[in-house]
Amino acid sequence: MRAYLDHASSSPLRPAALDAMLPFLRVHHADPGRVHHEGHVTRAAIEEAREQVAALFHARPREVVFTASGTESVNTAVFGALARRPGHVVTTAVEHSAVLEAVRRGAGAVTEVGVDRYGRYDAAAVLEACDDDTTLVTVQLANHEVGTLQPAAEMVAAARERGITVHVDACAAAGHVPVDFAALGADLVSVTAHKFGGPKGAAALLVRRGLRFPPLLVGGAQERARRGGIENVPAIVGFGAAAVDLDVAGDAARARALTDRLAAGACSVDGVTRLGDPDAALPHLVCLGVEGVEAEPILLGLDRRGVAVHSGSSCSSEALEPSPVLAAMGVDADRSLRASVGWSSTDDDVDAFLAAFPDVVARLRELRTQA
Amino acid sequence: MRAYLDHASSSPLRPAALDAMLPFLRVHHADPGRVHHEGHVTRAAIEEAREQVAALFHARPREVVFTASGTESVNTAVFGALARRPGHVVTTAVEHSAVLEAVRRGAGAVTEVGVDRYGRYDAAAVLEACDDDTTLVTVQLANHEVGTLQPAAEMVAAARERGITVHVDACAAAGHVPVDFAALGADLVSVTAHKFGGPKGAAALLVRRGLRFPPLLVGGAQERARRGGIENVPAIVGFGAAAVDLDVAGDAARARALTDRLAAGACSVDGVTRLGDPDAALPHLVCLGVEGVEAEPILLGLDRRGVAVHSGSSCSSEALEPSPVLAAMGVDADRSLRASVGWSSTDDDVDAFLAAFPDVVARLRELRTQA
Repeated sequence: MRAYLDHASSSPLRPAALDAMLPFLRVHHADPGRVHHEGHVTRAAIEEAREQVAALFHARPREVVFTASGTESVNTAVFGALARRPGHVVTTAVEHSAVLEAVRRGAGAVTEVGVDRYGRYDAAAVLEACDDDTTLVTVQLANHEVGTLQPAAEMVAAARERGITVHVDACAAAGHVPVDFAALGADLVSVTAHKFGGPKGAAALLVRRGLRFPPLLVGGAQERARRGGIENVPAIVGFGAAAVDLDVAGDAARARALTDRLAAGACSVDGVTRLGDPDAALPHLVCLGVEGVEAEPILLGLDRRGVAVHSGSSCSSEALEPSPVLAAMGVDADRSLRASVGWSSTDDDVDAFLAAFPDVVARLRELRTQA
Repeated sequence: MRAYLDHASSSPLRPAALDAMLPFLRVHHADPGRVHHEGHVTRAAIEEAREQVAALFHARPREVVFTASGTESVNTAVFGALARRPGHVVTTAVEHSAVLEAVRRGAGAVTEVGVDRYGRYDAAAVLEACDDDTTLVTVQLANHEVGTLQPAAEMVAAARERGITVHVDACAAAGHVPVDFAALGADLVSVTAHKFGGPKGAAALLVRRGLRFPPLLVGGAQERARRGGIENVPAIVGFGAAAVDLDVAGDAARARALTDRLAAGACSVDGVTRLGDPDAALPHLVCLGVEGVEAEPILLGLDRRGVAVHSGSSCSSEALEPSPVLAAMGVDADRSLRASVGWSSTDDDVDAFLAAFPDVVARLRELRTQA
């Protein structure tokens, strides 16, 4: 039995989500845009899922635009905002690569605001970086690598008062801490399903009512002409079911208990520290700095002992490139590991990690001493 | 028991595809970009699916870029080609709206080549429409509404010799007639899975080896840095399994027998004709022109009698707008119906259509006479 501690990369599908999806994989297959009975069935299912997702994020159903991935949501937000109003973009140094690559491609000028040693940006600094040419601010709600919760809510109103469109990337946060679209007040919020037990292939861009917004994918009137292409009905239905299955507060409390125990055990090893804000972080992930040993051999050593974690590498790289997030925090990015839990995690998973980790680190340090 | 005759909109998932997907919905959930064992399992599954899809379309595995929909593939092709080399685009009047909307958005100048009464463009006319500023030709392999097979192969080599990038939209054709990427010689070919019994959420853009091509979705190095965003592993695995399950020649022969019988029966009703080329068309669909009665009430009448077909409306509209394809053919677009079969279709489905259709048309004509 292996211990899977990489839920922040992708979490297993919740059984309630799979159960909801199966009829749409086995029986109900029609294009929801068609007027026949079969099309009505799939359309109704999508609209029910839209209500379920809207309820989770305190949005109106019409504000939910389903997409195929968090990356697509982010790209739609950034490119759409810049197509409406080209200009200067303010973002932060610790955004996901989907945000950073999109703004670098789409914007004429970009300011990346720095962060403190916890990876937290300062709301006032984000606002100060805005000038008269700024048309878009795009910031995250929580960091995907170290878990630090961000002060997005503190700058949304002030930026919007200056006529700036505000996009908040909540892909890492969604399902793990409350994401309240109405209260946050942002124009655009990106969320994704597979990081909290929804299916891959389902995500959403929340678009504030009244914001006219060009689609990224053109060629059909789906999603009220905001996203062309046939709807992935089973995945959308699974997203809705996962949103209902979720108990954000309860799941977070269980996750916090597991990650706190994991962090405490790991940090009892000499030269191991927890990165990110210990007091205001996502409940389900722990980022560890490990002095004197690189992340990759630790990760491989743990993997051989049946424990799956993530290195502090950049999001999608197989090459274990150093993380810009950790670099921005002033941390040695080659020496960090991320362990993360989810709805299916148990104490056994943490026990397996704690049984293997000290030994793996000790052996690698021994090898280094011998070299 | 209803008769589903709208496979060309979306076909039921093949049981072989669902069986292949289930382990990736139930057990194997990891991000394929991760280096742990769980990530290796999903990565290996994607690469196996890539080989399966490549084999179906006579492409090299590395030429297959998985996307989430045919619309995304087409958008990626058109916007990517125009980002590389902005310029004039030549397309045809009968392309899918994904192509037409993308070129209208992305290109400075567009020429839409007309078609004959079967909806067929002329390869020489496409080449004649190219000028020194033309950087992209995008044409379909078969028409999605009337089924007419197109002479794409006749113009690919000549256009490429002139330095023009050639994209062929094979989304309607894939799985129903042979699509041979190597023989066709195009730079880019779009295909999708759900129209031949693969899952929704899986499609591909075939990209000729050596063609450096910017991604549409940025933010990750997935798909060899050609498409950012986590891979929809279950859908990709299902796409591969559907590609293996498919017997293009056998399925086409069965489909042809059903559609020929349906067309013959329908055309025995006074004032009903088959649209599109009767001798060179996709095997699985029939487009019928119905004199004197609009499509929508026929569709609704058939639906009440348990038969699902599609009107000749534009692809994704719920408003039953007239089809530009039929308009380009000089056909009355308000008076056409499309019936289409697939891997699960039976003689009973055709019988149900033939039992209902003459009566539905007769009653509507009677109503009109009374009015």
